[in-house]
Amino acid sequence: MASITATQFNLVYDVLSFSLATMGATTIFLWMRVSSAAERYKSALIISGLVTFIAAYHYLRIFNSWTEAFEWTKDGTVQATGIPFNDAYRYMDWLLTVPLLLIEIVLVMNLPDDEIFSKASKLGVASALMIILGYPGELVLDENHLGTRWFYWFAAMIPFVYIVYTLLIGLADATNSETDLTVRKLTKGVQWLTVISWCTYPIVYVFPMLGIARDDIVVYIQLGYSVSDIISKCGVGLMIYRISMAKSVALRRGSEQTPLLA
Amino acid sequence: MASITATQFNLVYDVLSFSLATMGATTIFLWMRVSSAAERYKSALIISGLVTFIAAYHYLRIFNSWTEAFEWTKDGTVQATGIPFNDAYRYMDWLLTVPLLLIEIVLVMNLPDDEIFSKASKLGVASALMIILGYPGELVLDENHLGTRWFYWFAAMIPFVYIVYTLLIGLADATNSETDLTVRKLTKGVQWLTVISWCTYPIVYVFPMLGIARDDIVVYIQLGYSVSDIISKCGVGLMIYRISMAKSVALRRGSEQTPLLA
Repeated sequence: MASITATQFNLVYDVLSFSLATMGATTIFLWMRVSSAAERYKSALIISGLVTFIAAYHYLRIFNSWTEAFEWTKDGTVQATGIPFNDAYRYMDWLLTVPLLLIEIVLVMNLPDDEIFSKASKLGVASALMIILGYPGELVLDENHLGTRWFYWFAAMIPFVYIVYTLLIGLADATNSETDLTVRKLTKGVQWLTVISWCTYPIVYVFPMLGIARDDIVVYIQLGYSVSDIISKCGVGLMIYRISMAKSVALRRGSEQTPLLA
Repeated sequence: MASITATQFNLVYDVLSFSLATMGATTIFLWMRVSSAAERYKSALIISGLVTFIAAYHYLRIFNSWTEAFEWTKDGTVQATGIPFNDAYRYMDWLLTVPLLLIEIVLVMNLPDDEIFSKASKLGVASALMIILGYPGELVLDENHLGTRWFYWFAAMIPFVYIVYTLLIGLADATNSETDLTVRKLTKGVQWLTVISWCTYPIVYVFPMLGIARDDIVVYIQLGYSVSDIISKCGVGLMIYRISMAKSVALRRGSEQTPLLA
């Protein structure tokens, strides 16, 4: 385990706790609003809440792993305990939440039921593949083996590019078919917010290649991924909420003719 | 307790945590969707959620047992603490969840109320018997006594074959009576997914007979059962959800004439 300063230890500690609280709060809000959504959009809200719920679980585990990996000494410094800090939790989290994130976006779009299922499946598989390809490289922090890290970075970027393409171009017709201007803007917004926030992950991934000192890397990676997670899970989840609610109102006014279940 | 490497310890640790998160997330989704199902299918959704809920409970126990069975040394290796890793949890879990799994399948099928009860009871008893007969063999890992493991394997395969026969052939009439094509495909799908995922359990069971090194067996068994559990509980549960919802929509449209309670 890298040696870190007391300030660095506290910084990561606070950010992990903040992330846990944010994920938990977003979960409760999304789930408590499900009963007010139209039948068709309930699944989207439940799944948005599941994403932040699963993330809250993993932030609790990451937080506990962080506090077990270090201990305070009598003179106010922090030293490694020998228990390794578990960085697999983030990947376990993403393996579940990233496909669900894409499914929640597809569920609020103007798509026929069968296309919802096929689009959600393809995006789900592509995103799971992206996570699986990224993980082996994440374990490489040693500066003499950064080529391996780059290799997995490139491998994971292939499904990543496919997902970005599908979100921005493949789903453009469905987005443009939204008759309500607010809904169309929100739908475009959620696609762009997802793509932009996702672009921060491959940047955090290459932190070790940017010449950051070995001991500092773990700190920067934790901070970077935590901020990205809050934007892509809570931010996107709350936009899905606004779309669901706007569409539920439109459905009730009878201005849309869509089947009732998804 | 077998001696394992740090990587093996982490692998099982991560997979157990991932399974716990998956079971928990599936439970919440299934239960939150109950209110949208037709009265007749609410029990099936609740029971599908119970299966993953009971599994989540046991995965928490298995996870904790795993972390108590090993400890980190100062030099970054893992050693046994002397507290045995409890593998009875899986059998306790199956004794409850496997009969429930079969009941949730029977509940979404086109069967008269009295036949639902008799089919569910027979399948429930057969599956409980299968678990009870399998357990004594699971305790035998010593390569000199693998004959005993084989004996219980064969004993448990008798009710197993009866269940497979009932699912694929005994219930075929009910499956073919589904008028909705999507529902019929989904019902066949859930029967086959159950049978295929269940076939992985007797394969994992014979891992010790396949010449895998003693120390590695516990790792492979944990990984194998975890993957099988996710498919047979979460995968099947979500298919039951799709059948329930499709049938609920059909019921509301009045295209089906079925009694309202199960």
